[in-house]
Amino acid sequence: MNAEVIAVGSELLLGQIANTNGQFISKQLASIGVNVYSHTVVGDNQERLTRAIEQSHDRSDVVILTGGLGPTKDDLTKETVASFCGRKLVYDQQALEYIETFFKRHNRTMTPNNKKQAYVIEDATVLANRHGMAPGMVVELADQKKIVLLPGPPSEMKPMFEHELMPLLLGVSDQSAITSRIMHFFGIGESQLETDLEDLIDQQTNPTIAPLAGDGEVKIRLTVKHTDQEEAIRLLDETERLISARVGSFLYGYNETTLVKESYAVLSEQGLSISSAESLTAGLFSSELASVPGASQVLKGSITAYTNEIKQVVLGVSNETLATNGAVSEECALEMARGAKRLFQTDVAIAFTGVAGPDKVGDQEAGVVKLALVLPDGEERVYALSLSGGRNAVRKRAVKYGYFYLLEELKRRNGSK
Amino acid sequence: MNAEVIAVGSELLLGQIANTNGQFISKQLASIGVNVYSHTVVGDNQERLTRAIEQSHDRSDVVILTGGLGPTKDDLTKETVASFCGRKLVYDQQALEYIETFFKRHNRTMTPNNKKQAYVIEDATVLANRHGMAPGMVVELADQKKIVLLPGPPSEMKPMFEHELMPLLLGVSDQSAITSRIMHFFGIGESQLETDLEDLIDQQTNPTIAPLAGDGEVKIRLTVKHTDQEEAIRLLDETERLISARVGSFLYGYNETTLVKESYAVLSEQGLSISSAESLTAGLFSSELASVPGASQVLKGSITAYTNEIKQVVLGVSNETLATNGAVSEECALEMARGAKRLFQTDVAIAFTGVAGPDKVGDQEAGVVKLALVLPDGEERVYALSLSGGRNAVRKRAVKYGYFYLLEELKRRNGSK
Repeated sequence: MNAEVIAVGSELLLGQIANTNGQFISKQLASIGVNVYSHTVVGDNQERLTRAIEQSHDRSDVVILTGGLGPTKDDLTKETVASFCGRKLVYDQQALEYIETFFKRHNRTMTPNNKKQAYVIEDATVLANRHGMAPGMVVELADQKKIVLLPGPPSEMKPMFEHELMPLLLGVSDQSAITSRIMHFFGIGESQLETDLEDLIDQQTNPTIAPLAGDGEVKIRLTVKHTDQEEAIRLLDETERLISARVGSFLYGYNETTLVKESYAVLSEQGLSISSAESLTAGLFSSELASVPGASQVLKGSITAYTNEIKQVVLGVSNETLATNGAVSEECALEMARGAKRLFQTDVAIAFTGVAGPDKVGDQEAGVVKLALVLPDGEERVYALSLSGGRNAVRKRAVKYGYFYLLEELKRRNGSK
Repeated sequence: MNAEVIAVGSELLLGQIANTNGQFISKQLASIGVNVYSHTVVGDNQERLTRAIEQSHDRSDVVILTGGLGPTKDDLTKETVASFCGRKLVYDQQALEYIETFFKRHNRTMTPNNKKQAYVIEDATVLANRHGMAPGMVVELADQKKIVLLPGPPSEMKPMFEHELMPLLLGVSDQSAITSRIMHFFGIGESQLETDLEDLIDQQTNPTIAPLAGDGEVKIRLTVKHTDQEEAIRLLDETERLISARVGSFLYGYNETTLVKESYAVLSEQGLSISSAESLTAGLFSSELASVPGASQVLKGSITAYTNEIKQVVLGVSNETLATNGAVSEECALEMARGAKRLFQTDVAIAFTGVAGPDKVGDQEAGVVKLALVLPDGEERVYALSLSGGRNAVRKRAVKYGYFYLLEELKRRNGSK
């Protein structure tokens, strides 16, 4: 099966945003063995969009369009595809109810142009949009080819692709059952991982092994084709063992997980509360933990201590430590973590201090980060990192390392690793 | 003049990287009034690349290709364009010297396939590559149209575009200057804004008015064509006045700004320090402020108080308020803000409390947020919001409203609004 991606939107042609949807879709399709032959970006122009659809449809089995499903006059994708297929737009009761609920729930008034979003292409399979109003669609043509319409905002498109479209694509790409397992790694780069696993990646055919990088982490998607589910799982387990023997120390979770979700789950399982003391990360660790529903079961609080004075007064970091070792030191990180544990009365505390950049602070380079963990039994850990990237890449990576070390220690304590 | 961009490289179709070159080139061309009608991404495949060049050449005056100029067998762009134009590749002495210099400077040994890079298309204008080996080329065709070849790595492509290609393009592009202004709005939806400005958007031709939505905000791009820069500014001002008369209360900034950057700038200008007390947002406000370089000039600290106990013990919220009004109340938000101001000794403090969801808390629905501001002169403000979206959309929007209200109050105090 092969596919082409068409992104619709003048903002792309004006260079206001990059076509990250094209990248995301390509990566997802590559992981299930669908070849992507081209990406096209066209503006909000019916004639040019029609031509792009015609060409992509000629060349490929599936044409995936993103964008142009909104309620404004600019948004022409639905109309253009309908006219290309020779179908009508029909009012979809379910889509309408969804939109009405959305407006009611948020005490907003529905403007007439919002109703436009309840129209879908006749006989299309409608894909639910759980993060916005525009539904997606899969149109099956007489020649067995498919045209897929997805919303433009990545926050709507990505979950729709993964949860609504992917099962449909897998169902049709091949009749044999397909089972996937995603392994999540942290602390190893994509090229290192690929080098370490090169022979396995080249030799394996069932399951296939597809490394996927992004967001400072690496994932491996194992995809097995087998109609017998038990045999499929056995094949996945076998390949996982081969991979883990080489790079298992970087593995932290499976499937739809993240470092944050995994940390929440382990804290919650072990019945532990946590707090953070943050300097360069300034609340990013606690904010990310709070992004998980139910976070209040484990997170009690955090302090952002952006000045030395607050590190002293609120967290009790000693004068001596600040004078002798400075704010960016393992000693300071440890005293910050102890301070948070004391102030918030938690089982675990974590602290971050460092130089986010772009400028160095004193003789400390941007990217230098010190991290401390205080564990339930009073055990203490400190870590020194030297991270690359701009100010916010450093802050984000520091937080990811924090979650990774936290997980490692909690699993070790529990003997589950 | 209009243009199309073709990016060549299988890594783009595998989703390993996004086509940021397309975005960069579009933005650059828009700034000189060249319309970009499409982006295309094709793999390292001569047949498909030829077809893409044919199509783009049919439709536009300039075709800009990026990538595929390297020394390996995969790299086919130069050969494909040469064959499309019916020209030969010729050895270019100057290009060879560039490459030799590059190798000498980096103490590397030149391999035979590097010499391939000294071949250029006959009669092309060669563009120097100061950050890599592959020279760029501008090929002028018999029909006056142009094909431009640029290297793929952004670190080579961008400086070549700006310093080598841009002067050539400006010499030939149409003489009218183009000036843009972006207006940033918050607190109004895209469809509401378009409804409010519908007649203006339809009638205006110079400047054009283009609404752009994304990330919970709306922007309007005004683009004027006029050779006289003063007259261009006058036309932009005039249209801005028409827009502001209708939706000016939602306007918060211009061009490359964000709510966070704008807030940082105003705090910094007014010499004010700030702290936050955060419940549902859990450090997101402080973390976003810390994303701006120089944040330590204004941000002193923040408290995440995720439990009632911490609201009481650390921030001094009264027993009575929690018992009578509850943690999700304007009273609690205000006491939290006062507590942060006291604890961190700042000029301004802001507090967030609410229900992020997905579940309601007591009789409070998900999305209910109370926000409080304590200002330098002791003035206090409270706000009640009812926000839409999932848990993290609610948290992000709450923070955006926080920045918006903060800005509004600081500008009002300063009489600048």
